[in-house]
Amino acid sequence: MSDLGCMAERIIRMALDEDLGSGDATTDAVVDPDLRGEAWLIAREDLILAGLPVFKRVFYELDAEIKFEENQMDGDLIAADTRVCLLRGRLASILRGERTALNFLQRMSGIATLTRRYVDRAMPHKVKILDTRKTAPGLRWFDKYAVRMGGGFNHRFGLSDGVLIKDNHIAAAGSISRAVQLAKQHAPHTLRIEVEAEDLAGVEEACRAGADAILLDNMQPAELLKAVEMIKGAALIEASGGITLDTIKDVAGTGVDMISVGALTHSPKAADFSLEIIPKTDTLAV
Amino acid sequence: MSDLGCMAERIIRMALDEDLGSGDATTDAVVDPDLRGEAWLIAREDLILAGLPVFKRVFYELDAEIKFEENQMDGDLIAADTRVCLLRGRLASILRGERTALNFLQRMSGIATLTRRYVDRAMPHKVKILDTRKTAPGLRWFDKYAVRMGGGFNHRFGLSDGVLIKDNHIAAAGSISRAVQLAKQHAPHTLRIEVEAEDLAGVEEACRAGADAILLDNMQPAELLKAVEMIKGAALIEASGGITLDTIKDVAGTGVDMISVGALTHSPKAADFSLEIIPKTDTLAV
Amino acid sequence: MSDLGCMAERIIRMALDEDLGSGDATTDAVVDPDLRGEAWLIAREDLILAGLPVFKRVFYELDAEIKFEENQMDGDLIAADTRVCLLRGRLASILRGERTALNFLQRMSGIATLTRRYVDRAMPHKVKILDTRKTAPGLRWFDKYAVRMGGGFNHRFGLSDGVLIKDNHIAAAGSISRAVQLAKQHAPHTLRIEVEAEDLAGVEEACRAGADAILLDNMQPAELLKAVEMIKGAALIEASGGITLDTIKDVAGTGVDMISVGALTHSPKAADFSLEIIPKTDTLAV
Amino acid sequence: MSDLGCMAERIIRMALDEDLGSGDATTDAVVDPDLRGEAWLIAREDLILAGLPVFKRVFYELDAEIKFEENQMDGDLIAADTRVCLLRGRLASILRGERTALNFLQRMSGIATLTRRYVDRAMPHKVKILDTRKTAPGLRWFDKYAVRMGGGFNHRFGLSDGVLIKDNHIAAAGSISRAVQLAKQHAPHTLRIEVEAEDLAGVEEACRAGADAILLDNMQPAELLKAVEMIKGAALIEASGGITLDTIKDVAGTGVDMISVGALTHSPKAADFSLEIIPKTDTLAV
Amino acid sequence: MSDLGCMAERIIRMALDEDLGSGDATTDAVVDPDLRGEAWLIAREDLILAGLPVFKRVFYELDAEIKFEENQMDGDLIAADTRVCLLRGRLASILRGERTALNFLQRMSGIATLTRRYVDRAMPHKVKILDTRKTAPGLRWFDKYAVRMGGGFNHRFGLSDGVLIKDNHIAAAGSISRAVQLAKQHAPHTLRIEVEAEDLAGVEEACRAGADAILLDNMQPAELLKAVEMIKGAALIEASGGITLDTIKDVAGTGVDMISVGALTHSPKAADFSLEIIPKTDTLAV
Amino acid sequence: MSDLGCMAERIIRMALDEDLGSGDATTDAVVDPDLRGEAWLIAREDLILAGLPVFKRVFYELDAEIKFEENQMDGDLIAADTRVCLLRGRLASILRGERTALNFLQRMSGIATLTRRYVDRAMPHKVKILDTRKTAPGLRWFDKYAVRMGGGFNHRFGLSDGVLIKDNHIAAAGSISRAVQLAKQHAPHTLRIEVEAEDLAGVEEACRAGADAILLDNMQPAELLKAVEMIKGAALIEASGGITLDTIKDVAGTGVDMISVGALTHSPKAADFSLEIIPKTDTLAV
Repeated sequence: MSDLGCMAERIIRMALDEDLGSGDATTDAVVDPDLRGEAWLIAREDLILAGLPVFKRVFYELDAEIKFEENQMDGDLIAADTRVCLLRGRLASILRGERTALNFLQRMSGIATLTRRYVDRAMPHKVKILDTRKTAPGLRWFDKYAVRMGGGFNHRFGLSDGVLIKDNHIAAAGSISRAVQLAKQHAPHTLRIEVEAEDLAGVEEACRAGADAILLDNMQPAELLKAVEMIKGAALIEASGGITLDTIKDVAGTGVDMISVGALTHSPKAADFSLEIIPKTDTLAV
Repeated sequence: MSDLGCMAERIIRMALDEDLGSGDATTDAVVDPDLRGEAWLIAREDLILAGLPVFKRVFYELDAEIKFEENQMDGDLIAADTRVCLLRGRLASILRGERTALNFLQRMSGIATLTRRYVDRAMPHKVKILDTRKTAPGLRWFDKYAVRMGGGFNHRFGLSDGVLIKDNHIAAAGSISRAVQLAKQHAPHTLRIEVEAEDLAGVEEACRAGADAILLDNMQPAELLKAVEMIKGAALIEASGGITLDTIKDVAGTGVDMISVGALTHSPKAADFSLEIIPKTDTLAV
Repeated sequence: MSDLGCMAERIIRMALDEDLGSGDATTDAVVDPDLRGEAWLIAREDLILAGLPVFKRVFYELDAEIKFEENQMDGDLIAADTRVCLLRGRLASILRGERTALNFLQRMSGIATLTRRYVDRAMPHKVKILDTRKTAPGLRWFDKYAVRMGGGFNHRFGLSDGVLIKDNHIAAAGSISRAVQLAKQHAPHTLRIEVEAEDLAGVEEACRAGADAILLDNMQPAELLKAVEMIKGAALIEASGGITLDTIKDVAGTGVDMISVGALTHSPKAADFSLEIIPKTDTLAV
Repeated sequence: MSDLGCMAERIIRMALDEDLGSGDATTDAVVDPDLRGEAWLIAREDLILAGLPVFKRVFYELDAEIKFEENQMDGDLIAADTRVCLLRGRLASILRGERTALNFLQRMSGIATLTRRYVDRAMPHKVKILDTRKTAPGLRWFDKYAVRMGGGFNHRFGLSDGVLIKDNHIAAAGSISRAVQLAKQHAPHTLRIEVEAEDLAGVEEACRAGADAILLDNMQPAELLKAVEMIKGAALIEASGGITLDTIKDVAGTGVDMISVGALTHSPKAADFSLEIIPKTDTLAV
Repeated sequence: MSDLGCMAERIIRMALDEDLGSGDATTDAVVDPDLRGEAWLIAREDLILAGLPVFKRVFYELDAEIKFEENQMDGDLIAADTRVCLLRGRLASILRGERTALNFLQRMSGIATLTRRYVDRAMPHKVKILDTRKTAPGLRWFDKYAVRMGGGFNHRFGLSDGVLIKDNHIAAAGSISRAVQLAKQHAPHTLRIEVEAEDLAGVEEACRAGADAILLDNMQPAELLKAVEMIKGAALIEASGGITLDTIKDVAGTGVDMISVGALTHSPKAADFSLEIIPKTDTLAV
Repeated sequence: MSDLGCMAERIIRMALDEDLGSGDATTDAVVDPDLRGEAWLIAREDLILAGLPVFKRVFYELDAEIKFEENQMDGDLIAADTRVCLLRGRLASILRGERTALNFLQRMSGIATLTRRYVDRAMPHKVKILDTRKTAPGLRWFDKYAVRMGGGFNHRFGLSDGVLIKDNHIAAAGSISRAVQLAKQHAPHTLRIEVEAEDLAGVEEACRAGADAILLDNMQPAELLKAVEMIKGAALIEASGGITLDTIKDVAGTGVDMISVGALTHSPKAADFSLEIIPKTDTLAV
């Protein structure tokens, strides 16, 4: 198990299986299996790099002899046309892994880049930008890692490492108070009790019930301000719900502790990279 | 194995594993395990539905007793605020599966909706809109299914079910002619030989080499027109590379047979859905 | 996926694979595959039942047609020689699953029975008896379920759903204060920060650092009393370390909120059950 | 595949998955990922060591760069407070693997230590102490290895590598004679036919039927003596059923060839170990 | 898990995965997914049927709604052009599973048919025809089942359910006597000790060492006769090595107990079957 | 992942699991685990070698320290009694892997040898000898690799990398023309459309429908000649159906482009190899 952990490695192998199927018909037919060469990974737009260890791992799974020279590292802000990493080894292996490796890297760097934009806009205020569980199925580990590379923080990973009582739980339990009370009795003591409130009445009820954290759902800045005032000190405060690059600054200004943004992982734009084999005449001796 | 096939089912289970971890701390603590009820899946914006069988399968994996009443089916154009599907069963199971089921549905419907927009703009011309292999790792089956629901067509699924000689293969093989010749000799006879051309000289070489299909990479409409004229009849013609909603109509007008668009699957915006538990007083007898 | 969840089902299948190997040489040779009959699951000592759904699932994996009539349910206190459950179906299937099913049931009921003894002794005081992560590898889900059936509560399931700063973390971080401060900065806000203290100086440092919970490690009742006084209200208090059936009452009397006991899951005595095929003459019509 | 075999490795990975979930929230937050150091594995009571290769393998799965200096080996009798093994490497990796590695080692050494006590008591007599299939589900390979380290011998691993006709098989087949006859006809010739007898009549029937081995179930020493006399030479003799440390010497004295003891693996007490990070000032140069 | 056991089911799914890859391009394009119909499984030569439950299971994995009407069962001798089984259901599912289902059935029936020919030739003599471990990798369960359907018996399944000391083990241990002695000391008592002898000196040594069974390797009938005389009664006798349909009668006549034939499973000729969709006009109402 | 790809590695591990079960009872009991030595892999008949990398991989999975000296490589024609490869390392590991490694090698070399005979007979004519999907379930990768080593070519790997409209598809679709038309509309453009024809009317219909390739099923040479004349140039021509070593020369002489032969993979005779441990006195220093 590499530093990526076994969950990540399993997905990487599945992604390769998915793409390779019974083999690479093009490369098998067209490329001499012993031919060695070099290729550059190049950023094609300004971006925050995220996923280089994953990119490398994809190739490692295919061919442990490919070598890498990295000019950049995850979290770096990279300008368009920067050469990020040199690959050296069997060209057939590089060609087989290219698309899968880029698919990881482009999604992850897209998430990191988007996260950084939210972080930068919220910057003047002391607030953490959080992700959500709205990730691509199977890719949560990668999506959440990318958020961290962009300067964001992770909310709970999944259903078992946090208590978050949402509208539907409240509907099922009967009321905010009842739900919080049940959580305090039955949830492991290692988890904080966070509850969603949709209006100030909900905020008050959550405070009275003794929630450790309150998620203010879909509130406008004016209402958020009042909620922050009501809660201040009694619980951690998270704002959530439809917050965009246009509105985040105002939300951040209300004094909430955290802002969670689903779009970071549910609708990132892939970052643009290319992988270019260096023509032989330009190749350094291998 | 359901109609989804075992590849899809495996990913669905992994996505559930990923989210559930050792259990749903909130639901376990807050919701009576025997409580039954109903919930509506509601579209929150205009969209093309894709992934309803996947959405249902997620819940089926958790609790085979949940029942569904579907008002819509995959491929349908659905208006904002439409009630798409009713769920009936143990609320705890509905809550546990909600996020994972929505994550699939939102990505897939996002892809279908985006595809439909491309298809509609290209419509006056007889051209197929194709996807690419730029999919989320592990989710190719879902991504490509969604493209079909949006009215698009699938390019090869992976490396084994098509020969597509790209710039890097040409660099490795030496020339377009050499690469096409090698493919004709060694690739299975069941696969067509498609080759990428970046300019008219490449197109000519590809034609002479006897390619079955030619991918015109990153050409402007004017150049595409000339290429189409050169090839017409001798090979299938695919245009690709940076084609957007703004440019697709002009590209389609050049007479190419197919246009492939990476953005369909690498940068879709999640479609907006919500799942709402129906308060008890409104619930029909179960 | 049954109610047991997919983690539990995977282990059940592995346990059957492990026992069955290439087949049951005895039953295959000796028992008519079509012979049907009945068998009683009988408790051979006083015990708390835990694992009956797992017991049934083992047989279900082998032969979905075996039927069960349950006289008892998990969590029940059962007297020696009680008939717990009747099995009816192909005898060959019952014989193949017997050992694996009993191995789960005996371990789980052993854990539940031991837990109940701790709970009963601590009863007069308002304190929760907790398990630890000292479980049999691969069997944590089962071990922790059994603790609940015995009236105990679960500590965190694993490393991802709780922050527990132990002596070795403190050694690595430098001090209690430093470790707590780092955890507050970097751990997800959904997790409470619990820290281990080995003496009253440590307790004081943990309080000052703002820990949400403090684990008092290996303290005698007198020292525990002082610690409880120091902390009271500021943090949750957990006592741990070498607490036995002989000492638990005194520990509970100190006013701590929780007592964790590794022995519940690392050294349970298997509960005694037998499975007895009912001789034909005694068998009810099938 | 290491010397442990792929069955063992699979369980080790599952145990790590089970404990790590989505990550180690404490170590990730509190420990510098590059910090290196040393830790001692220390025995906290007198014990027979079993499982050191498994203990090492757990860490290897997490971080292949951790180095070990072993002072003891499996099968050794170790006194309390002995330093068994030095670990050197990234502290974060050592902390992540600590609990899982200890869980294996403590169970396995507990089994070996208990086995040795049985072996020692039976020692004056030439008898083999055997384990049974009453192992923790999924851990049979580990449990049976530990029995060997304690000086015991293994009975069959599972249902496919031995024929053992027990009371329930006899009930299904009709009689001892009939069951033995069927086994002789249909079981692979590579397996001996062992049959259980509960009284002297059963012993006589088993002998007449030509069993290769007879398991004397739950007999007192006086009855065992008679059975041994009846069988002597005609079949291997195994005593089984409720034999304890108090009674084993007497059973061994009856002249049986083997004594099987379920308690070795169904109710071992975990052996006590600790892992202690060596404070920096005491650390040797790395 | 069906009666086939989980090992068999896993291989069936792998075989389907292997054939289906990302989907059935032909059927998906050409066959209406809702079209229902019927097909006959027809034997195209005289054969012993083996594998019908596997054949059915393949389709069940793809589509649980396909129905079967079986005219024959495993072990039956079937004449050319016999209609073995009717399939009824979605034609697309029948087409997808056809090749994989036939591949199992043809191999298994080929093995059963070949086994029956050996059994018939040896028939006048009381001797068991055995298989070996020379099976197609991954298919041992199927291959050995097919041997039983042909009237043969199974030797050990794998390395763990029999002790068979072959020439290379003898070379490693030093001598037959030494090897048998070691096996008696260390192998589980549930396994017989079988040893290979290549000449009469070896037979004598094996007898003296107390082997339970002796494999006479590559001996001519005259030598076999002498060996049988030497051993008779002291051990089970197996003849092996290059025995063909031409020589088996003579070998059987020497009085050996068992004859093992590698060719049964390493070189079977596939039995000829076809699957024929019944044209609509001939189809019974569904 | 080695050069064999992950599909092949998975099967190799399954085959080892299948054979080893819970361990090698013979080797564990009889062979000193530290004993090192050498063994020769020897061809026992004239054959085409195929599978040496697989043979080596089997041992590598068991013991990464075994060393190999290869005298031959895959594709070589090898005379009886040739020493193909020397193995050096722990004898216990060599003995554990022997049967599984040979099972792969014997099947693969059997396929390669048979293929070469077909290729040689067809040689004077410019025709490719193709395999089919009639492979041993789970072993397709290995079977198709072996065909290539014998000088044959691979048809599609599975259902997703080729369109082949067979009699049953035609029956389901209604006619050849209809089926070809549907395939042209719906199958990915990367796949050629091949259709089966059973007579000259079918050939004519297939040509008119615009098939890219036509499979002439079960035609005699005279009919094949006419079909070739009809098609020549318009489509690739494949002959198939019951072609044997006796008839292939005549079929090749008709001018078809390809001949596919199911027997290559459904009924190969295992090639004869042995593995012989070199007696100590003859062993070179290790």
